[in-house]
Amino acid sequence: MTPSQKASGNGRPVAALCGGVGGAKLALGLQKVLGGDLTVIVNTGDDFTHLGLRICPDIDTVVYTLSGLSDQERGWGRASESWNFMHALREAGGEDWFQLGDRDLAMHVLRTQALHGQTTLSEFTGTIAERLGIHARLLPMTDDTVATNVLTPEGPLGFQRYFVGQQCRPVVKKIEFLNAADARPSEQAIAALRDPTLEAVIICPSNPYLSIDPILSVPGYREALARTTAPVIAVSPLVGGQAVKGPTTKIMDELGIKISSASIAKHYPFISGLVIDEADRADAADVPVPVHVTPTLMKTLDDRERLAAECLRFADVLRSQRKAS
Amino acid sequence: MTPSQKASGNGRPVAALCGGVGGAKLALGLQKVLGGDLTVIVNTGDDFTHLGLRICPDIDTVVYTLSGLSDQERGWGRASESWNFMHALREAGGEDWFQLGDRDLAMHVLRTQALHGQTTLSEFTGTIAERLGIHARLLPMTDDTVATNVLTPEGPLGFQRYFVGQQCRPVVKKIEFLNAADARPSEQAIAALRDPTLEAVIICPSNPYLSIDPILSVPGYREALARTTAPVIAVSPLVGGQAVKGPTTKIMDELGIKISSASIAKHYPFISGLVIDEADRADAADVPVPVHVTPTLMKTLDDRERLAAECLRFADVLRSQRKAS
Repeated sequence: MTPSQKASGNGRPVAALCGGVGGAKLALGLQKVLGGDLTVIVNTGDDFTHLGLRICPDIDTVVYTLSGLSDQERGWGRASESWNFMHALREAGGEDWFQLGDRDLAMHVLRTQALHGQTTLSEFTGTIAERLGIHARLLPMTDDTVATNVLTPEGPLGFQRYFVGQQCRPVVKKIEFLNAADARPSEQAIAALRDPTLEAVIICPSNPYLSIDPILSVPGYREALARTTAPVIAVSPLVGGQAVKGPTTKIMDELGIKISSASIAKHYPFISGLVIDEADRADAADVPVPVHVTPTLMKTLDDRERLAAECLRFADVLRSQRKAS
Repeated sequence: MTPSQKASGNGRPVAALCGGVGGAKLALGLQKVLGGDLTVIVNTGDDFTHLGLRICPDIDTVVYTLSGLSDQERGWGRASESWNFMHALREAGGEDWFQLGDRDLAMHVLRTQALHGQTTLSEFTGTIAERLGIHARLLPMTDDTVATNVLTPEGPLGFQRYFVGQQCRPVVKKIEFLNAADARPSEQAIAALRDPTLEAVIICPSNPYLSIDPILSVPGYREALARTTAPVIAVSPLVGGQAVKGPTTKIMDELGIKISSASIAKHYPFISGLVIDEADRADAADVPVPVHVTPTLMKTLDDRERLAAECLRFADVLRSQRKAS
């Protein structure tokens, strides 16, 4: 397969649901395998307006990851980033709890300007993705504003205040998705999930409660996932009963959910299969759907591509079994 | 005089009218001499909205100059500036004809956010000036939008399109100040000019047509300058019949104005005296107001302070003569 074949796709459409860092790694692997056949539906519940700028952290993480601009070490933001805007902001007395890199700022400024005009978030994201040479199709879950809100004993916290401002320290009592009931899903995303030629849907190993649930909270997605003809494969974010990064297990604990692969599977009642890490192999028997066990830690680019290919093969297997039965 | 005395002022109020770079140099000299007794009324005709950000080039030049943050070599913007935002903007396909430094951006982002709220440009400018330790009082000429518009044979050009985008190349047929007739002057500025204890008004050596005229186009300023009890001293922007920087003489030529100190004096019918450079000494006889001849090129900080002190002494002399007559 040559790069140009990958870029234009091979008529093997696959959809992925994705949050930020962890999910974006698998999305990159899927893009490597599928090129233009990949549609990534991205969480926008983390989005917020800060300093008058519209910031979409998960979209930007996916954009930077799929375009090769991301900082591999820090895990978020752009490589070769500088922080002189933040220095000057602090000096001028501006709010400095949320880090905005000088290069990253270009995205927020351009997006804010575009959204103030007639451009939708989907259109802006598509234009930027094309400009930065991304082969996959990136779709915000909705063009409406849905805001993830974390209820804590100290009161409600907007997502970034919880996640960045308070470093996930407050106990989570409940997670809400403000305005979700009134939001319209991305038409293109729903169409992709309804496509009868769809080969697989991959739920990336993002935080199920903070990153995937916002997508599922928008009317249309659960139904489309329940009805899609393609196998829906979730990749568990747990490795040896721990989250690789982020507050997944802390939140499971606080919400009274048992930390296990079975809990992840039950959280996604529409899935056909679950991919779990070798370290969680003992969990497999309790998982109510078919399981594929493999190393899921994605350190290298090869890890990402290999895991992506395994997810797609697992989907192939499940589809053949379905046809055979 | 100790710095703290200068900061709090000595009850010797002085007002200055000022554009960008050249004017800001004299404003800095005046601040050195006067501290908190100085009120600087700044041109906002150059202001524009770019990439959704409200940019006030002359206010920022004055702020950076008076706070010691300016780039002395480049002549505009901030020292130790970096340009990674611009790199990323270009990469993402954004408009890149107007340079925005990473540090400078903090000002535009904060101001845009403030103006979208209930804050006026005067309030924002005052807050920033205080935060950055500026002793002088900085006042935008108006809180309303006035836009300098340059009429050229190729059609009308917004100020920044003419000045930065086209590098002042088009021939100037006429200069307009859009919305000036409906704009309200800064109340504090008018009050400063009407203050019976005012010692002097200094018209800084900014471009009379592009930087000072926008201020004078706002109703109230010409009248206040004609009626002020203090001597009004203009510093000619010409040195040896040439502008130190910028298109002053090119514009005079294009508008059919003779390039001479007399033309500068006639342009300001309300002045009590004109300060001209030694190189223009031969012009003195034709100037219809009292003239003070001195080196006006401000290369060093000392030059600025010396010229400022000379302007104030010249005002003193004119005031005494007035009393005596």
